[in-house]
Amino acid sequence: MRTTFRSDLLLPAEPGQRALARELYALAAAQPIISPHGHVDPGLLAEDRAFPDPARLLVVPDHYLTRMLLSQGVPPARLGVPTVDGSPVETDGRVIWRRFAAHWHLFRGTPSRLWLEQTLTDVFGVTTPLSPATADAVYDELAARLAEPEFRPRALFTRFGIEVLATTESPLDDLGRHAKLAADGWGGPGGRVVTTFRPDDVVDMEFDNWSANVDRLAEVSGEDTGTYAGYLAALRRRRAAFIAAGATSSDHGHPTARTLDLDPAQAAALYDRGRRGRADAADAEAFRAHMLLEFARMSLDDGLVMQLHPGAVRNHNRRLYARHGRDVGGDVPQATEYVHGLAPLLDAHGNDPRLTVVLYTLDEDTFTRELAPLAGGYAALHLGAPWWFLDSPEVLRRFREAVTETAGFYNTAGFVDDTRAFCSIPVRHDVARRVDAGFLARLVAEHRLPEDEAAETIVDLAYRLPRQVFKFTGGHS
Amino acid sequence: MRTTFRSDLLLPAEPGQRALARELYALAAAQPIISPHGHVDPGLLAEDRAFPDPARLLVVPDHYLTRMLLSQGVPPARLGVPTVDGSPVETDGRVIWRRFAAHWHLFRGTPSRLWLEQTLTDVFGVTTPLSPATADAVYDELAARLAEPEFRPRALFTRFGIEVLATTESPLDDLGRHAKLAADGWGGPGGRVVTTFRPDDVVDMEFDNWSANVDRLAEVSGEDTGTYAGYLAALRRRRAAFIAAGATSSDHGHPTARTLDLDPAQAAALYDRGRRGRADAADAEAFRAHMLLEFARMSLDDGLVMQLHPGAVRNHNRRLYARHGRDVGGDVPQATEYVHGLAPLLDAHGNDPRLTVVLYTLDEDTFTRELAPLAGGYAALHLGAPWWFLDSPEVLRRFREAVTETAGFYNTAGFVDDTRAFCSIPVRHDVARRVDAGFLARLVAEHRLPEDEAAETIVDLAYRLPRQVFKFTGGHS
Amino acid sequence: MRTTFRSDLLLPAEPGQRALARELYALAAAQPIISPHGHVDPGLLAEDRAFPDPARLLVVPDHYLTRMLLSQGVPPARLGVPTVDGSPVETDGRVIWRRFAAHWHLFRGTPSRLWLEQTLTDVFGVTTPLSPATADAVYDELAARLAEPEFRPRALFTRFGIEVLATTESPLDDLGRHAKLAADGWGGPGGRVVTTFRPDDVVDMEFDNWSANVDRLAEVSGEDTGTYAGYLAALRRRRAAFIAAGATSSDHGHPTARTLDLDPAQAAALYDRGRRGRADAADAEAFRAHMLLEFARMSLDDGLVMQLHPGAVRNHNRRLYARHGRDVGGDVPQATEYVHGLAPLLDAHGNDPRLTVVLYTLDEDTFTRELAPLAGGYAALHLGAPWWFLDSPEVLRRFREAVTETAGFYNTAGFVDDTRAFCSIPVRHDVARRVDAGFLARLVAEHRLPEDEAAETIVDLAYRLPRQVFKFTGGHS
Repeated sequence: MRTTFRSDLLLPAEPGQRALARELYALAAAQPIISPHGHVDPGLLAEDRAFPDPARLLVVPDHYLTRMLLSQGVPPARLGVPTVDGSPVETDGRVIWRRFAAHWHLFRGTPSRLWLEQTLTDVFGVTTPLSPATADAVYDELAARLAEPEFRPRALFTRFGIEVLATTESPLDDLGRHAKLAADGWGGPGGRVVTTFRPDDVVDMEFDNWSANVDRLAEVSGEDTGTYAGYLAALRRRRAAFIAAGATSSDHGHPTARTLDLDPAQAAALYDRGRRGRADAADAEAFRAHMLLEFARMSLDDGLVMQLHPGAVRNHNRRLYARHGRDVGGDVPQATEYVHGLAPLLDAHGNDPRLTVVLYTLDEDTFTRELAPLAGGYAALHLGAPWWFLDSPEVLRRFREAVTETAGFYNTAGFVDDTRAFCSIPVRHDVARRVDAGFLARLVAEHRLPEDEAAETIVDLAYRLPRQVFKFTGGHS
Repeated sequence: MRTTFRSDLLLPAEPGQRALARELYALAAAQPIISPHGHVDPGLLAEDRAFPDPARLLVVPDHYLTRMLLSQGVPPARLGVPTVDGSPVETDGRVIWRRFAAHWHLFRGTPSRLWLEQTLTDVFGVTTPLSPATADAVYDELAARLAEPEFRPRALFTRFGIEVLATTESPLDDLGRHAKLAADGWGGPGGRVVTTFRPDDVVDMEFDNWSANVDRLAEVSGEDTGTYAGYLAALRRRRAAFIAAGATSSDHGHPTARTLDLDPAQAAALYDRGRRGRADAADAEAFRAHMLLEFARMSLDDGLVMQLHPGAVRNHNRRLYARHGRDVGGDVPQATEYVHGLAPLLDAHGNDPRLTVVLYTLDEDTFTRELAPLAGGYAALHLGAPWWFLDSPEVLRRFREAVTETAGFYNTAGFVDDTRAFCSIPVRHDVARRVDAGFLARLVAEHRLPEDEAAETIVDLAYRLPRQVFKFTGGHS
Repeated sequence: MRTTFRSDLLLPAEPGQRALARELYALAAAQPIISPHGHVDPGLLAEDRAFPDPARLLVVPDHYLTRMLLSQGVPPARLGVPTVDGSPVETDGRVIWRRFAAHWHLFRGTPSRLWLEQTLTDVFGVTTPLSPATADAVYDELAARLAEPEFRPRALFTRFGIEVLATTESPLDDLGRHAKLAADGWGGPGGRVVTTFRPDDVVDMEFDNWSANVDRLAEVSGEDTGTYAGYLAALRRRRAAFIAAGATSSDHGHPTARTLDLDPAQAAALYDRGRRGRADAADAEAFRAHMLLEFARMSLDDGLVMQLHPGAVRNHNRRLYARHGRDVGGDVPQATEYVHGLAPLLDAHGNDPRLTVVLYTLDEDTFTRELAPLAGGYAALHLGAPWWFLDSPEVLRRFREAVTETAGFYNTAGFVDDTRAFCSIPVRHDVARRVDAGFLARLVAEHRLPEDEAAETIVDLAYRLPRQVFKFTGGHS
């Protein structure tokens, strides 16, 4: 899908660079979208029903939006965010939308504003600019579009030019939605919609109900998780099932980047302590760290790419968590150490080109000091795109400015949208492509790279690199 | 006061953005100055006497200037900085000025240079460029101006277009200077000159003479500080007196951003240990951390905005401290942690929109990783302007580039000059307005924000936001 | 040597700033090269033999190149990097060159690409652009040049316009190569090629064979290193020998910036523990930290400038180290703390203008928070140029943007190439001069600095400052 509105959006203002950037951007914009990591509900595409009302589609589930209003004193319940205890929240979509529009100025200068504006214009063809005064008009236009069949998920998927989309599931998921997608010719290995193996809820002893989750893991896998060996076997089984559902990668969301290579007896003792409910915070950290070594070894066997997302303090806003649960915008980043933390993993497997580890960060201070030197010095490492709070035009630019000189372009993994918001996928990729075009245009304008090589590079960044790093070997290229 | 010299100072060089920036800057430049935090001596405005000679006005008390010369081997005594033991220092203003001018090249590229140049031209109408060769001529021109009545503090205050200026006093201050200002129609609640409650010298057990200060607090407040409860009562009394003198905020300068919510018995035990001279460094840190919770609770009662200035290693240059005392340029920043440090305060009151906490930093590495996510996720938090070493064009720009995408503009608090140098107030605000104009111009040039919204935003940043965040409800708007 | 190719390389793209930058750059480009710190083999210039084949000259010893290929799965042995155990590696220069050229795209956007391209064109006059297709042609052109007498080291040294080049030797080095240079009129005090005193291998107890090295130090110095006092005497003797060979500085590569001022008995006890093989990691760290105080005291006696290079985790890639040894690209930076670490040194001697300490970093997060405030507040401190992973156009620019506002230009020490690659010296200095020209051009374009002062400043940065800070008092200026 080509962007039709504000065609110079985010391109450098200086006319010479803008002209170069336009040409480079056009090459990127013509590429299919590879979305190797995100949190879209696979049921959306499996069922292919019409989206709900505009507020439930675009506001209620978008924690970028609800947290900004929270920061100005508007409680999430007034925007319809469901409560843990079922206590009432606003349910009128139009009221939610108006309330949101009344605070639209808060988003000036934020990516949320760009994403939503471009989604309105490019996805839904709504050209009325959003404002408190136009809230109802925009709502009505959107609601009308959502009722049309060409705005159902599969139709949009095709229109968006998505070649492959990876969702993210727990090992406890029965993968039924992916089975439906496969049955419809949309899923399975090499398919358009695939899954990702995300085992945090059965690995992190500090996760709500970890031990009960491990019990369920036994049921889902048919392996006895009463022992550490059985637990590993269960994880291996689920990985095989995920691979059969098209997964090419696993994903690991840990508070830190610590890794640890325990001997099996030590690991088993830790596991047993956790299962008996006697693990403390240090045990939980050690177990998470050790399991990254186990997963690396499994990856060497089964070929899954490992994604590591460290550095989030989950549920930092405790009242928000108590009232609304996880994943509603209450997390905050913390300083993250990679050089010593990753050493055990890198000592064991860092020079093995058969392993692919994609490292993300919420701490941009590590770009030049840690991430670029590590990715530029170990065969197994690639750098993932700036993530979450860092998925923004300014940071995407700083990422290239910071990591390229030491890691080059080819130790990065291409853009990853990491989003729950299906309709925002094209604009998120579009923003990254525009920023990369601007960065490459500057290299050309400063005589640091010939234009033909810049042209090759931007296509690599937009399409070839994510396809190769994340092992999507199907598709049309 | 409009700037008449170098009208494109600090605006982006690219002509398209410069044209946009000029228009935006003009809107900001027309706004009154809100100076919600600084260290101007209120006696200056209470007494309204002529300023001393140029060196004593502009060089001797400006630790930005004296520390730069110190860094090149010129001892502060040679620039007239008073000594703790009264040992002799240079006293001839002209000699000090010549010595300073001889090192003027050291300030190339620094904000000190911009501030002083603009002060000379815009405040004093001295257009001879400063250099070693022109030192005497500039000195004479300045000295002549300082003798004229229109260069007295109150006349300048009016010419500067200051709507409100907050000074900073200890609870031990008798507020007599502010009483004089109120009597003259310049001070008191809603007045032009107000105070700020800064209790470090009675809160920080590591402050010189803390326990003696607490004894004096009893005298000033009429409360018995022999007990912790009495100590809290004394602080509350002084806050009431400060509010009566126009204060709308408190200010807290701590080495770290740690907060702690002790139960009253624990807090009292710590207090008693300190009063008996038995507190160690950890006790002092815990007490400071806990007192921030106490002050937050007091703020919920009395409405004072809390300012938190963490991260300075005070008196790092020990010889300088031994020879010249505090506040002469011997402090250095240290890495500052906010995410875990502020958690106790945020758990208790972070979601309460009745509380306003303005967070400052000397550690720009926290902009995207900690400060923007926190301010963008808690109702009570606002981000203060880059402070001290960070109050400079490059960092003001990086601040906007780093925090806006996550916290927006409206979780920031507007510019704060934090200066002791009364005559530099207009240029400091002017620099911030120019940098904001340049940043907004880039957003417009990159099609990220329509020009009319940028125009509204720059006025908000220059005037409306600081006025609202710091609760200045008087004035003419 | 003037650059003839891509004359606007790295200058700002905006035409107004580019025009200014060109003029400023021309002033810098006309200056001789001062290379106050690097790792060129002095034997190269002492013997003045023809260089080996292109691959052995430009690829095999350049760990920037070999580590990038390693990061993409090409083992260093396939590029001819020697092994510790003598196991075979690729020896055919042309094969190595082809293999390298096949991966040339990996270097897009890196300084290695700029350095190599400019070296090919400006040093060797090879204008065929390097690519997989042209690998043989470029190789042949290069090989032909290398056989010509004007491409011998001394001829190039003269053509490069190097005024002085400091190499780096261990106290265990007999300085024979420098004696040869002195005998030929190239070395000795005030000469064109001088040495630097780098004692890590006899100071760092964790260095391979530290104790045996200390035994050898006794032999080389004629002092008995059986006692701590004798050890210090031996170091003083070697410093005197180095000064006689032209050294003006020492250099210290430590994992951290920690300093410590032990009393002599404690230091002697630590030393003895190390010599008996009983020192642990904390002992080694304390001894390194303390020795920086000893070296500062020696510098106050003998005048050597102290260079401190902290923050490298040596041999992080353990397999690379096991296979190929030190200095082949296996190091990685770590977070580095200066404010508390340097306090003991600064408390003792930081305000003494007779001492010069040049601080380097691999952690750019310390630029504004720690390094600029320290260098801008202590007479003894200067900031070294961005080093190693940070020696790149983007970081050189960020360095100026980050440190200038607090430390000015005159607390920095000028560019330091720190390279083993003799032929890359001109381009490395050229890159820094271009970046400084661009930065100063922006200051001029934004009316922050008059053009005449920018012109004086760029010559100071390129020539006068390094000459003065590193005490090169000979030469033609």
